[in-house]
Amino acid sequence: MRRLAEGHPFVHCIRRAVGFRIPLVLMSSKLRKIEIYDTTLRDGSQGEGVNFSVPDKLRIAERLDAFGIRYIEGGWPGSNPRDMEFFRLVARRRFKSAQVAAFSMTRHKNTPVDKDTQMRQLLAAETPVVTLVGKTWLLHVHEVIRTSPEENLRMINDSIRYMKAHGKRVFYDAEHAFDGYRDNPEYALATWLEAEKAGADCIVLCDTNGGVLPQEIANVTALAVKKLKVPVGIHTHNDCGLAVANALAAVEAGAVQVQGTINGYGERTGNCNLTTLIPILQLKMGLSCVPKSSMPKLRELSLFLDETANLKPDPRQPWVGANAFAHKGGMHVHAVERVVSSYEHSPPEAVGNVRRVLVSDMSGRSNLLVKARELGVRLDPNAPQTRDILDRVKELESKGYEFEAAEASLTLLMRGMLGQGRKLPFVLEGYHVSMRSNGKGSICEATVKLRVGAKEAHTVAEGDGPVNALDGALRSALVRFFPKLRRVQLIDYKVRIIDSGSGTAAKTRVLITSSDGKREWGTVGVSENIITASLQALVDSIEFALLKQ
Amino acid sequence: MRRLAEGHPFVHCIRRAVGFRIPLVLMSSKLRKIEIYDTTLRDGSQGEGVNFSVPDKLRIAERLDAFGIRYIEGGWPGSNPRDMEFFRLVARRRFKSAQVAAFSMTRHKNTPVDKDTQMRQLLAAETPVVTLVGKTWLLHVHEVIRTSPEENLRMINDSIRYMKAHGKRVFYDAEHAFDGYRDNPEYALATWLEAEKAGADCIVLCDTNGGVLPQEIANVTALAVKKLKVPVGIHTHNDCGLAVANALAAVEAGAVQVQGTINGYGERTGNCNLTTLIPILQLKMGLSCVPKSSMPKLRELSLFLDETANLKPDPRQPWVGANAFAHKGGMHVHAVERVVSSYEHSPPEAVGNVRRVLVSDMSGRSNLLVKARELGVRLDPNAPQTRDILDRVKELESKGYEFEAAEASLTLLMRGMLGQGRKLPFVLEGYHVSMRSNGKGSICEATVKLRVGAKEAHTVAEGDGPVNALDGALRSALVRFFPKLRRVQLIDYKVRIIDSGSGTAAKTRVLITSSDGKREWGTVGVSENIITASLQALVDSIEFALLKQ
Repeated sequence: MRRLAEGHPFVHCIRRAVGFRIPLVLMSSKLRKIEIYDTTLRDGSQGEGVNFSVPDKLRIAERLDAFGIRYIEGGWPGSNPRDMEFFRLVARRRFKSAQVAAFSMTRHKNTPVDKDTQMRQLLAAETPVVTLVGKTWLLHVHEVIRTSPEENLRMINDSIRYMKAHGKRVFYDAEHAFDGYRDNPEYALATWLEAEKAGADCIVLCDTNGGVLPQEIANVTALAVKKLKVPVGIHTHNDCGLAVANALAAVEAGAVQVQGTINGYGERTGNCNLTTLIPILQLKMGLSCVPKSSMPKLRELSLFLDETANLKPDPRQPWVGANAFAHKGGMHVHAVERVVSSYEHSPPEAVGNVRRVLVSDMSGRSNLLVKARELGVRLDPNAPQTRDILDRVKELESKGYEFEAAEASLTLLMRGMLGQGRKLPFVLEGYHVSMRSNGKGSICEATVKLRVGAKEAHTVAEGDGPVNALDGALRSALVRFFPKLRRVQLIDYKVRIIDSGSGTAAKTRVLITSSDGKREWGTVGVSENIITASLQALVDSIEFALLKQ
Repeated sequence: MRRLAEGHPFVHCIRRAVGFRIPLVLMSSKLRKIEIYDTTLRDGSQGEGVNFSVPDKLRIAERLDAFGIRYIEGGWPGSNPRDMEFFRLVARRRFKSAQVAAFSMTRHKNTPVDKDTQMRQLLAAETPVVTLVGKTWLLHVHEVIRTSPEENLRMINDSIRYMKAHGKRVFYDAEHAFDGYRDNPEYALATWLEAEKAGADCIVLCDTNGGVLPQEIANVTALAVKKLKVPVGIHTHNDCGLAVANALAAVEAGAVQVQGTINGYGERTGNCNLTTLIPILQLKMGLSCVPKSSMPKLRELSLFLDETANLKPDPRQPWVGANAFAHKGGMHVHAVERVVSSYEHSPPEAVGNVRRVLVSDMSGRSNLLVKARELGVRLDPNAPQTRDILDRVKELESKGYEFEAAEASLTLLMRGMLGQGRKLPFVLEGYHVSMRSNGKGSICEATVKLRVGAKEAHTVAEGDGPVNALDGALRSALVRFFPKLRRVQLIDYKVRIIDSGSGTAAKTRVLITSSDGKREWGTVGVSENIITASLQALVDSIEFALLKQ
């Protein structure tokens, strides 16, 4: 590997773009391409607390495609009904750059490949790519699947050949590749050569247990790259905190595909964290893996996944975490003020993050300006209101609000503070929510009293729960005055307990997504009371719907 | 580096101890020793949310000493009063193996070393070890401390020499060692040679910004090891998720001291995580850094630190996290049952952790059997009830239940279906929840009517929200009959809307964690109505609490 010459045009171009001195290393003078294979929807959903619904999976696939991920592994057909439903629905979508992959094991032992249920289910997924996992380690051949080394080779060969005959692009995941190679190098290599012979398009070496160290990853990968004609890939786990380092070691040894997950979701300690890996490959090593223009959207992608999985974002996550560019030490803050690169290895903007320094928060301001422009709100960078809005946003965020997925609430806030917004066109004078159960059934009822101008409305509705009933009563009161609200529907409702630790009295954040059939918008509410928080978000949603008209 | 010969007695000894096939690499045939330098109390406390009191710091120092850490950096004398107080008190303690270090910068520019306030405060700390940080990078010499390259060399030399003259063991932390070396190798090396000349006992190369990749760490460290006569150390940060990998790269290149923090606490994304690094050095590389007998206490040490810092332990933390040896995928569980090393790179007991099996809709019968054993429920693999229970679990999961974090609910379900469980010791006859707002304030009230045997209770409580109020009323009714419930507290409450897409009428999953001060248990409830779902989880929690007695 050699350092890029100082005079190389790419060095200047990157330096101009990021304003930083970054070490650039390349395998050759041409930009080498690394293919990113995302398995958030399959291996990632093995992580504790990660459970995606089918609509979640479709939305995630769309976001990964928009970000420029090359392969999206959607699931394991047949392992559960949700995965099959996902493949049925995703087949109708048109993706910009991504291809969808379905995952399965090689055929069962002593079973004709065309009679194998797994192979049939894999074909039924109708994906352009299939990924087959097979055994490298003789221990597993003998003790887990309990067959002969020869039958294992036939299982690999048959399964790949069968999928190639059905026109698939086939990736072969060599399970326990490194443990297997350590145990019996000849047999391990024989399994990979068998996969190559059968027509696999990439042999992916998997450190399934996550226990191998970078040096061994590098050595075995280099050997595989030398012995195989097909491209080699890498799939790592974070059991030793080395998943990213191991993927890098493999890439340096010649691997061209990296399998991992957004935010490192995955079984046990997780998979290779693509959110960490991608910026290293792209910004530090000068390797191309996603479009350049995607990089500043990395933090957004990471937050979107956490939000969808309903996991609390890790503030310490490299590159994209809230603390990744936060400076606490007095010495550091002082130095960062003097030289921006003092305690920052890269500019936070490069991955859509912001510097958090208590003094002079220029980056926060510029973020807000960009966001305002996006939302169609005109903000003067030098006006005192801009500082006021920024302060207000920060204050609300410290109370648990989050505007990532609630841009309608942010728009209302900005317009309100600039005096551009119409006043809320109604006054909520009171409400009552009641639920009674006699041990058998239960009834939930809400009443709402509100005023529009001089006219009053007092309505009642039943619902499946308190928020549903309140929503019904509120709409029933308002559609009389604003018939267009008939078209507005709640399409998503998410509750998050923040600052949990004080039991049911913890703060609740409610995020609501609404739609009028043409576009969607998100609003947010925060309160110790889930009903109050929901009502805030509902009222914001209605205000925004009326504002647009 | 070479592989340990198969016949080496150490290989057998380790294999016998852990029952695993572990790759052992050594720099020489003798066990090489690596010194661990813990900076949890100084650099670690720069992390967001990490604030230790003086008694905290003393307790932590004692635990680190008991664990066998070689050096404990206690703070920066003069940076805040707490650190000085710590040094005053710690000086009276007798430590088993650790030496306490105090940290400071080199003297101020153009100041006689014996007149420098920082040097005086450093001496006042009365520690056997002092660590001095100085500049390697000319950019910082010019722009941050704003002096000449020559004066910087004098600052390094004077400060070290002064401390040596006062009988200290002196470590020199070369700030920005790698960035500085990249910028100007000659000057960087000159600063390290100056430190050596002045008598430093170890030159510690710091990747202060955390942006350097392992290969560059290895190259520069190898060069420093070659050019310097004194030992070389390494201090890394996790900004690229590579702090541990970088420390390992340096150790492989000849570094003999590693600086880091427990749980990776530290500014921004944190420091090198010693909790991850130590088991790799000790169990995988066969390097000695703490007494062998300490290793099974690693998880305990990690939890102690999180508890003292009042941080929620990261379940995904390598080696010591609650999920580090948790298995979810049915295929994995099946294989782990057959061969223990299938999906575990090391035995969990080696670091004081335990294997856990998670039940989820990917799970099969083997997951359930293992889980039942863990929960103390006897399940016959061939009994028809086992299939019934599995079917019921899958059915509930398809409705949105999740038992991963709700093991108490799973236990109750299994015992109920096996006819082993006591009946719920009370009958909930009815409840009423009401919330009224007049546009200003709001009041939330709940009533509960229940029966225990022939006795009835009818109670009322107010709360911050409907669930909080209901919880209050329920407890108030039950403690009369079951006084032990007084000790049971809700410690976490999580709400997830599942199958979202149908607005506020979507299903709600509530996960509750309860504690009786000794152990914690999780329960789950699912309903379209958040109140009903919460009540289910609350009732399960109470039933489980009573079941245990």
